[in-house]
Amino acid sequence: MNILPQVTDLQDEPLAARLQHHLDHKTKPLGSLGRLEALALQLGLIQSSTRPQLLHPQLVVFAADHGLAARGVSAYPSDVTWQMVENFLSGGAAVSVLARQHGLALTVVDAGVRHHFTPRPGLLQRKIGPGTADMLDGPAMSEAECASAIETGCGVVRSLPGNVLIFGEMGIGNTSSAALLLARLSGEPIERCAGRGTGLDDAALQRKIGVLQAVLQRHEGVDAPLAVLAAMGGFEIAMMVGAVLQAAAERRVILVDGFIVSAAVLVAARLQPHVLQRCVFAHQSDEAGHALMLRQLGGQPLLQLSLRLGEGSGAALAWPLLVSACRILAEMASFEAAGVSQQA
Amino acid sequence: MNILPQVTDLQDEPLAARLQHHLDHKTKPLGSLGRLEALALQLGLIQSSTRPQLLHPQLVVFAADHGLAARGVSAYPSDVTWQMVENFLSGGAAVSVLARQHGLALTVVDAGVRHHFTPRPGLLQRKIGPGTADMLDGPAMSEAECASAIETGCGVVRSLPGNVLIFGEMGIGNTSSAALLLARLSGEPIERCAGRGTGLDDAALQRKIGVLQAVLQRHEGVDAPLAVLAAMGGFEIAMMVGAVLQAAAERRVILVDGFIVSAAVLVAARLQPHVLQRCVFAHQSDEAGHALMLRQLGGQPLLQLSLRLGEGSGAALAWPLLVSACRILAEMASFEAAGVSQQA
Repeated sequence: MNILPQVTDLQDEPLAARLQHHLDHKTKPLGSLGRLEALALQLGLIQSSTRPQLLHPQLVVFAADHGLAARGVSAYPSDVTWQMVENFLSGGAAVSVLARQHGLALTVVDAGVRHHFTPRPGLLQRKIGPGTADMLDGPAMSEAECASAIETGCGVVRSLPGNVLIFGEMGIGNTSSAALLLARLSGEPIERCAGRGTGLDDAALQRKIGVLQAVLQRHEGVDAPLAVLAAMGGFEIAMMVGAVLQAAAERRVILVDGFIVSAAVLVAARLQPHVLQRCVFAHQSDEAGHALMLRQLGGQPLLQLSLRLGEGSGAALAWPLLVSACRILAEMASFEAAGVSQQA
Repeated sequence: MNILPQVTDLQDEPLAARLQHHLDHKTKPLGSLGRLEALALQLGLIQSSTRPQLLHPQLVVFAADHGLAARGVSAYPSDVTWQMVENFLSGGAAVSVLARQHGLALTVVDAGVRHHFTPRPGLLQRKIGPGTADMLDGPAMSEAECASAIETGCGVVRSLPGNVLIFGEMGIGNTSSAALLLARLSGEPIERCAGRGTGLDDAALQRKIGVLQAVLQRHEGVDAPLAVLAAMGGFEIAMMVGAVLQAAAERRVILVDGFIVSAAVLVAARLQPHVLQRCVFAHQSDEAGHALMLRQLGGQPLLQLSLRLGEGSGAALAWPLLVSACRILAEMASFEAAGVSQQA
């Protein structure tokens, strides 16, 4: 593989102090806008500005199929992946509705769906293969496929305008991949990492955990991030790893959706830890492993709405909070300017 | 006082079942939009429609001064109340910025600020008096003043268009009133109800609690909701009680901000329990008593962002989630329409 995008340290104490000074002199009690103030500070540091601005936000949904889905790890058949891609493109999915509400440009990337799509606007055909292989039999993808997916993800980001990337995903079976990546990279037991996905009942969840335990045994000893990604990842996840690295290298804001996007961030952060400085975690999903994943990433989610849909829907719901954080910095009056008395 | 607005029971099981059916057939796993689905159901029931629509949302900020502020219960001087009203009107406050972001019409109501304002658009002069009396000496307001404030609040709502009311407030000293209303109406000890307000340190918080304990003793035995409101409320809180009752009677959606607006809802709900069916709780603030208050109200907040600013700022931040809930119902495709396979 070519050299991965390099992600530098954003630490800038003088700028952080200037941003904090601005926030502290706005007409409000110190710290009273809570998480919004931390968010404003982060956005300022990413853009190296006391007036961060979010331009041309891009919501990019990476879709792919998973060989492991044939083992019955999901409540839905694999065909739902391509059917939902069609639904994204025709505007009827949750993420389509929310992107429209917030004026987010929506791009769907076919990273490896087992289906031939008719070309059309809003769809990027970047198929690495027709779904991954069954990871109980061997690695989900070859090292070459994994490298190709990462490079393709970098290219997708390079081709898009603006300074904000909002990532989402679709892929029947991909909570299994995300749980496996979390388990192997964190060392946590798979029972703590795996969840009900699209809605497994208790018995089906136990079967899923059994399958995932067998996968982990099959790939025992594999623990380098890229090798783990190839062995147990998915094409959409690998492509998001590249997209996250590229967006981070370009100092774009990265708005992270739920469990699966977080898994891509986990891999990217193991490769380039400063990636996390650019990541805003939109929400904590109800998928069982996501709380643990966020702790691994040191990420504080903005929303907790018991979402477990994926697609980028949680990220789209959190989007206006980022806009608010920027507007607070840009538009709120200072005590001095407004003639408001300060704390005694 | 004239008869209070009557608030009917919205219960409508056939409509609830129809709304649930619509939600369950949208292209997403069952229940996977979490709190957004419960919100869509609530909005549908309020409007008696499977296609609720939010029209001309009105953000109304009630402002007033508090005699008790002279006892040192706040980190800021009373003058900040009128100075912030000026700031709301000139567009520099947090709530002004957020209202602009979301296209919310902003009205500021002078319910009893100790200041003379020049008339101007966006300001309703409805002063009951120049701040409440010191409630350590007697009731904060007379029964007649309390009744007048409630009726004025009803009139403010009647004068505004649209089907959504978003309430906020400003009043140095009003976390004390809210804590006292909570303590007396719930029976919880004042230590659990009172918090740091705009930012008291430990010693000042202890002093505040001491003052509030003395107020509770001064008004021992007062426990009817309207009597409690007159004894220990504020003009902005009493006016919000009327506004909440009127909005509820008209089946408008009520978006509740933080601790002080919740206190008004608590009083209103003791008078007319079905008020709560119309209330959407925007957020749980960092003000210490708000979690307890929300439990008293059975309210599940949408956001938890460690806000403690008031003004309606938290409600404005939650606003796009209500829009999303309506759009999910109106715009998402069903499995049938999108040709997506359902759960096996």
